[in-house]
Amino acid sequence: MNTKALAAAALTVRSLSMDGIQKAASGHPGLPLGAAELAAVLYGEILKHNPADPNWINRDRFVLSAGHGSMFLYSMLYLSGYNVTLDDIKNFRQAGCICAGHPEYGLTPGVETTTGPLGQGIATAVGMAIAESMAAARFNTPYHKIIDHYTYVLVGEGCLMEGISSEASSLAGHLKLGKLIVFYDENRVSIDGSTDITFTEDIEERYKAYGWQVLKGSMYDMKKIVDMVEKAKKDPRPSLIMLNSVIGKGCPPVEGLSKAHGSPLGEDGVRKAKINLGLNPDEYFYVDPEAKEYFEERKKYLAGIQEEWNTEFKLWQQDNPDLKALWDQMLNGELTEGLALPEYKVGDSLATRVTSGAMINEIAKKLPSLVGGSADLTGPNQAMINHGGIYSAENRDGRFIYYGIREAAMAAISNGLQLYGFFRSYCATFLVFADYLRPALRLSALMKQPVIYVLTHDSIYVGEDGPTHQPVETLTSLRMIPGVTVLRPGDAEETVQAWKIALENKSGPTCLILSRQNLSVYEKEDPDWDNTIKCGAYIVKYGDENPDTVILATGSEVSLALEASALVPQKKVRVVSVLSREIFASQPEEIKSTFIPKGAKVVSAEAGITLGWEAFTGSTANCFGINRFGISAPGKVVAQELGFTSQALSELL
Amino acid sequence: MNTKALAAAALTVRSLSMDGIQKAASGHPGLPLGAAELAAVLYGEILKHNPADPNWINRDRFVLSAGHGSMFLYSMLYLSGYNVTLDDIKNFRQAGCICAGHPEYGLTPGVETTTGPLGQGIATAVGMAIAESMAAARFNTPYHKIIDHYTYVLVGEGCLMEGISSEASSLAGHLKLGKLIVFYDENRVSIDGSTDITFTEDIEERYKAYGWQVLKGSMYDMKKIVDMVEKAKKDPRPSLIMLNSVIGKGCPPVEGLSKAHGSPLGEDGVRKAKINLGLNPDEYFYVDPEAKEYFEERKKYLAGIQEEWNTEFKLWQQDNPDLKALWDQMLNGELTEGLALPEYKVGDSLATRVTSGAMINEIAKKLPSLVGGSADLTGPNQAMINHGGIYSAENRDGRFIYYGIREAAMAAISNGLQLYGFFRSYCATFLVFADYLRPALRLSALMKQPVIYVLTHDSIYVGEDGPTHQPVETLTSLRMIPGVTVLRPGDAEETVQAWKIALENKSGPTCLILSRQNLSVYEKEDPDWDNTIKCGAYIVKYGDENPDTVILATGSEVSLALEASALVPQKKVRVVSVLSREIFASQPEEIKSTFIPKGAKVVSAEAGITLGWEAFTGSTANCFGINRFGISAPGKVVAQELGFTSQALSELL
Repeated sequence: MNTKALAAAALTVRSLSMDGIQKAASGHPGLPLGAAELAAVLYGEILKHNPADPNWINRDRFVLSAGHGSMFLYSMLYLSGYNVTLDDIKNFRQAGCICAGHPEYGLTPGVETTTGPLGQGIATAVGMAIAESMAAARFNTPYHKIIDHYTYVLVGEGCLMEGISSEASSLAGHLKLGKLIVFYDENRVSIDGSTDITFTEDIEERYKAYGWQVLKGSMYDMKKIVDMVEKAKKDPRPSLIMLNSVIGKGCPPVEGLSKAHGSPLGEDGVRKAKINLGLNPDEYFYVDPEAKEYFEERKKYLAGIQEEWNTEFKLWQQDNPDLKALWDQMLNGELTEGLALPEYKVGDSLATRVTSGAMINEIAKKLPSLVGGSADLTGPNQAMINHGGIYSAENRDGRFIYYGIREAAMAAISNGLQLYGFFRSYCATFLVFADYLRPALRLSALMKQPVIYVLTHDSIYVGEDGPTHQPVETLTSLRMIPGVTVLRPGDAEETVQAWKIALENKSGPTCLILSRQNLSVYEKEDPDWDNTIKCGAYIVKYGDENPDTVILATGSEVSLALEASALVPQKKVRVVSVLSREIFASQPEEIKSTFIPKGAKVVSAEAGITLGWEAFTGSTANCFGINRFGISAPGKVVAQELGFTSQALSELL
Repeated sequence: MNTKALAAAALTVRSLSMDGIQKAASGHPGLPLGAAELAAVLYGEILKHNPADPNWINRDRFVLSAGHGSMFLYSMLYLSGYNVTLDDIKNFRQAGCICAGHPEYGLTPGVETTTGPLGQGIATAVGMAIAESMAAARFNTPYHKIIDHYTYVLVGEGCLMEGISSEASSLAGHLKLGKLIVFYDENRVSIDGSTDITFTEDIEERYKAYGWQVLKGSMYDMKKIVDMVEKAKKDPRPSLIMLNSVIGKGCPPVEGLSKAHGSPLGEDGVRKAKINLGLNPDEYFYVDPEAKEYFEERKKYLAGIQEEWNTEFKLWQQDNPDLKALWDQMLNGELTEGLALPEYKVGDSLATRVTSGAMINEIAKKLPSLVGGSADLTGPNQAMINHGGIYSAENRDGRFIYYGIREAAMAAISNGLQLYGFFRSYCATFLVFADYLRPALRLSALMKQPVIYVLTHDSIYVGEDGPTHQPVETLTSLRMIPGVTVLRPGDAEETVQAWKIALENKSGPTCLILSRQNLSVYEKEDPDWDNTIKCGAYIVKYGDENPDTVILATGSEVSLALEASALVPQKKVRVVSVLSREIFASQPEEIKSTFIPKGAKVVSAEAGITLGWEAFTGSTANCFGINRFGISAPGKVVAQELGFTSQALSELL
């Protein structure tokens, strides 16, 4: 181990971090200064990756869960020879620059996932570690280990305090994810001061209780860090490596203090730090030549590592053409042949969650990349994959994950599975509990990851479980996250199409909003409805070429609208099923006007808050919905008590 | 201890639970059957409360965190003599009945908090235990202990898996809440089956790591449960009492199985259970007379306990008239005298979060009930109370809580503080992280608890921290939760009024949406603006009696609207500051028309998604907002990059 070169790299991390943050007049120097030695040894000694090919599938993953310390990452991506330049670092946090305030997936080569909201990174990394073990189980043979790498994470106290990290770590221990190695930058300081003021639990014992190996050392003993990583690799459990550190190390005015965390050091602070570190205080963005040289050599060495893997991969591919075909199919993520879609006839009565369950299984048969799970609601969500078995420490080949009652971690893990490369992931819970997973769903959207969220029990028709379990505002609250596609099918046939649309949507997450209660399959007057529906809506019942009223209904309210229209036979009522309000809203006017002829009254019908429907109806009075919490009673009684009946709807027509 | 009577009570819990659930054809028998002995001994021996006065301030609190087991609670409330009748139990889960599917605060005497969403109960109970210690510190004297009780909780594996319980338990251990006693119904079964499939961590060690005492025993050894509670009471740490149990105990067909969890036992199952328990299978809603008699006696005994306390209270009150005055003021929660409101002049430039900080401190001076905290963003949120000190194990008198990076628990704890009776609680974090606390905020709303949420850094003007830290959809996502009041003031003066409105709103939570960046105080042409604003909006700039265009702007966009209107002097533009879109929307038409004259074009301006503004503008094209995620750059640059400028707004006018 070339400790001199690595020390030079650590010095470079400190130099670039403080100058980058000072120039931006914004940022978080505490972590990169405090953990610079880990940065150096991680990229200089530990990580098996290839800066020339950031997408190499068998690379080690590194997740900076403490995303505010982004200069830790950018400094090392630059030094390692990723396509991150010194100019990028000088433009830290500026518009158009790839070095954003927090690491953003898709923006910067070498950034494996977007981090910043604390706890998300470690939970996402658990998903990556699961994915690695799944891929290894599928592709490795006794002769060739094609998938064999580690997932590393850096957390601070912030990540460890967040509940999502507890959920994810508990599951990681249960699943014995031995190739997950988490470094903990133990500086015991957060924004409010020493963590003594709020966070005095015994972290070591907590992680042991989760079934992890826990190792302890100094952030500044690079040799020992490497030794601990070796020890972590040998242990079948996930490992937490606690590294005692000093926040803002190297900058005397703020070392060890919370003010090092999130503000530039100031010109004077930077000067003092440079003098203290033996740097020229009048030189900016200093890069130590020895570090530069070391990493240039290392880049070549790492390219050679991938070259060796390429050779191995070719041999594997020759020996295992079937596996190679599977590999291509999984990386590609496309269906190889048509789905045998479940078929229904008018009048069939079943919950849309049931059809969703049938679709999951049909898709799973044809699409080996599909993996998923539920937050302890496998039956109620109809989420089980019946082929492929349960994923566990003993069966890495399984495709279904029992996430336990851990919605927050489930969604972040689903992001990790999706980001990994081979897998299409879905996860399931009750719609009302989407609130628990919202922070990770937001990241799915921000990262444009096509995770499919299967959200059942979608309205007050949940019934007896009462207002805590009856979504009212949840559906619309999901629609509003930029990049999230929300689909609420009204019957079994629409559910089939909704799943197809979800599968085909590769640019972001899709939420499937599904009923607990049975819904009748209705006749669809648009003969091409299953094609039309791709524009977000189609006409179920024409009523007339020039209807008096058009009802825009979603989900279970399509049936309600059909009932209501039958109550006013004297009126010309059109019923439109709006599978996705947002897709429909984005259609050009000439399309929308084929649904809603000029002059027709528009009424919306949805068992939830009416917010947003005014854009179609023009008036709150024409929005038929539920702008209050529900009550505990059988579903139909709840609807009656709230005045949410076909009779009431018919009076609006 | 009358074990025979308590066994009869346990039998009654089982009888009522299975019949109630069977009659409702819906519910969760697993917990009440499995934990009936705890129910009996808890209400029959342990709890110090008074069924005749559910609001007795010094009662022990009991929180059924595993809220699905609601029949555990209703059976015992009935037996104990609360105003819960056998007919109520027979109408379990029916419209209008006080025995709802999950326990609902305000609906049923003896229900301390709404539970059902897992993990919320234990976190709320942590808030109650904090409140007890705070009240004790304020009111007890060396001669009189007026506040001195315990907070009990029942959790299952579901609560323990949820991240929020980890956050809350970690904080409870740190704060040494020795009067918090949590029973864990250790049946090791959840909906998906044995918890072996996903939850194998060492719970005992985890809780020890949090700094808790952990005791272990059998659910069916009532004597030992009482002994363990005594041991728990003596220990300065919070206690977890792990009670080994069998889900659905007493009903042989489902005992120990996950199917006992959430479905009625079926007629046959109920018959078998009754025979097994020695009950007449043809008798329904059996109440054991011995249990009935025992609890009638106990009710008298407990009334006597409160009577003793009343006597003590009178003595305390005589000896401590100042404390009694404080007591009244805190229970009442009203300001005793006028606030010295901070004053500003036109042109003053400061962030609305700064004014919020000033208001917190002014209110804290006058309103001793105000307590609050921040999720490790005390400075950035400007959330500190400067009088009263920090609440800690050593200073129970403190008023400010360092919640750590635990938003989810913070909000639930704030609910607990609020529910307790003496306190008005606020909690603070960045607006974008409201997603982390949304499940508890929903419960604040459902329970009509006036917790104040101080949410700063309210838009893309956060700037360099980038899209993970820039709320775009968050503001509107809060508006849509029924019963939540969302206020977004545009300058320092409006922030003062917003805080006043928040304080006066006693019927639900208020979210204060505050800027990170400085905003100039603007001239307000409505001379009575600080009164008008209570209707959710007021006119900042009249433009003309008959303006061409009315801009409805919120927060920082009021300034933007003023700038934009100045760019088009040829047009008659009115600028309205909309402090609360929902309050404004709820005004009668004749009020709204004084703001928006008929025929005027309406344009909305808000640095977030435009959803919902169409109700005012009539057209999406007239909604000026940001329907995408932001980018990392200085705030003003972000605005420019996204085309969110006064110039662009002026072009809409």
